[in-house]
Amino acid sequence: MDRTALINSIKTKRSFLCIGLDTDLSKIPQHLLKEEDPAFEFNRQIIDATHDLAVAYKPNLAFYECNGIKGWQSLTRTIQYLKQFDVFTIADAKRGDIGNTSTQYAKTFFNPSDSGLDFDAVTVAPYMGEDSVKPFLEFPGKWVILLALTSNKGANDFQLMVNKASGIKVFEEVLLKSRGWGSPDNMMYVVGATKAEMLTEVRRLVPDHFLLVPGVGAQGGSLQEVAKFGLTKDCGLLVNSSRNIIYASKEIDFAEKAREEAARMQLEMEEILIKIF
Amino acid sequence: MDRTALINSIKTKRSFLCIGLDTDLSKIPQHLLKEEDPAFEFNRQIIDATHDLAVAYKPNLAFYECNGIKGWQSLTRTIQYLKQFDVFTIADAKRGDIGNTSTQYAKTFFNPSDSGLDFDAVTVAPYMGEDSVKPFLEFPGKWVILLALTSNKGANDFQLMVNKASGIKVFEEVLLKSRGWGSPDNMMYVVGATKAEMLTEVRRLVPDHFLLVPGVGAQGGSLQEVAKFGLTKDCGLLVNSSRNIIYASKEIDFAEKAREEAARMQLEMEEILIKIF
Repeated sequence: MDRTALINSIKTKRSFLCIGLDTDLSKIPQHLLKEEDPAFEFNRQIIDATHDLAVAYKPNLAFYECNGIKGWQSLTRTIQYLKQFDVFTIADAKRGDIGNTSTQYAKTFFNPSDSGLDFDAVTVAPYMGEDSVKPFLEFPGKWVILLALTSNKGANDFQLMVNKASGIKVFEEVLLKSRGWGSPDNMMYVVGATKAEMLTEVRRLVPDHFLLVPGVGAQGGSLQEVAKFGLTKDCGLLVNSSRNIIYASKEIDFAEKAREEAARMQLEMEEILIKIF
Repeated sequence: MDRTALINSIKTKRSFLCIGLDTDLSKIPQHLLKEEDPAFEFNRQIIDATHDLAVAYKPNLAFYECNGIKGWQSLTRTIQYLKQFDVFTIADAKRGDIGNTSTQYAKTFFNPSDSGLDFDAVTVAPYMGEDSVKPFLEFPGKWVILLALTSNKGANDFQLMVNKASGIKVFEEVLLKSRGWGSPDNMMYVVGATKAEMLTEVRRLVPDHFLLVPGVGAQGGSLQEVAKFGLTKDCGLLVNSSRNIIYASKEIDFAEKAREEAARMQLEMEEILIKIF
């Protein structure tokens, strides 16, 4: 899905909601455990109940890998199932390695003929620099979502250090250096909602790039604050919610309750989008 | 494998060689492609030919994930096969995410009952800070190998920036902050051989930790330089070689040639270890 199609999807659905499929077998409704593939069955029902309200889905790889081969089967089925809907798909994998190895990771997420996976985008960690990120950008029509400022407490450890030579913070250096590696057509950035006031700095450096914003909901971030500082004329935001939506209920009504929570967020987003579209 | 056992293995084998199993189906001998699991068959023969010369094996996850479910099967078989030998096993995965997600990644590599994998150690990226690393340290007997200074060109982009507040570089901040998160009994650091002169700074901050050193061989680093600046009284080094060993030949004699290359490195390491053991 390219930038124009993504923006059109946001306009049509009046939503910039991304649903995080952090599917944990110990947290899903227990009646699903009798299914042949409980994780996929959970995802399928969540997707069926929410795909008109969300523009993107983001399975986090950790929750699939921890179940080994079975987990990869669930992930593969999920991404194949998502293909029938008009949604942007993000592998939240936070990968990154030396150049020839990053190429293999890019193939993992973008080259279905070998891996079975065919995501639109993958999250990438910036620590190893340019040659660890660029291989992902060589796949036409695919996106890198680079970690800039994350939503967790540990973001304070290294991301907020000030670079002596430039006087700007490490996460701002990530934005400044990397914005030239790709373009707003194939790069986005992760910026946590828990640090919404820093979106002003982020927008100074990357005025046109889409931002993937985790941390609204369970982690304490506010949608209004994120929109206040991060919204652009094209929206420019994908706001993720995982646990608040997918675990809204742990009973047989989980999909219905997930839809209610997604609808609540979509409505809030619609009120924000009225200002620009 | 704990620290004492690792040091004993280094003494017994007179080697601190780690062999990187970056097994790429487009680079392995073509006669193996008729096997049911070519990647595992390649690894098995490499392991059989070298396990008396190497103290550690390091499959890089990217080379398995890119083949999807089949790749995870090859990886699972490889780690299960390695269990019979007296070797330290490293999942070179460069993972890292918010706390509850890092716990899932730790289960992936350390909890065989669900994932099928049972590595001794996993490489972790530091960008997301303390709470992204600590969940891996909660598994008794398991190790985190944290990226500090990597061997690639992109290491210059962020790792060498100087923190204005402390006057030291970002990779030194990683060492300084993280050394208290675990201990030399459950943490190691990745320090690239291509920047061997910086090992003096590294050793000032982490005098006792083992270092996993990539970049000798194909990437241009020197074993003598690494030992000169990085060797401790317990050795304190695992030097990795991947392509130089596993692709020493692409013909039917690939395992034999891999052994010759591993033996050449082991001999050079033996001459270094004589100084301390």
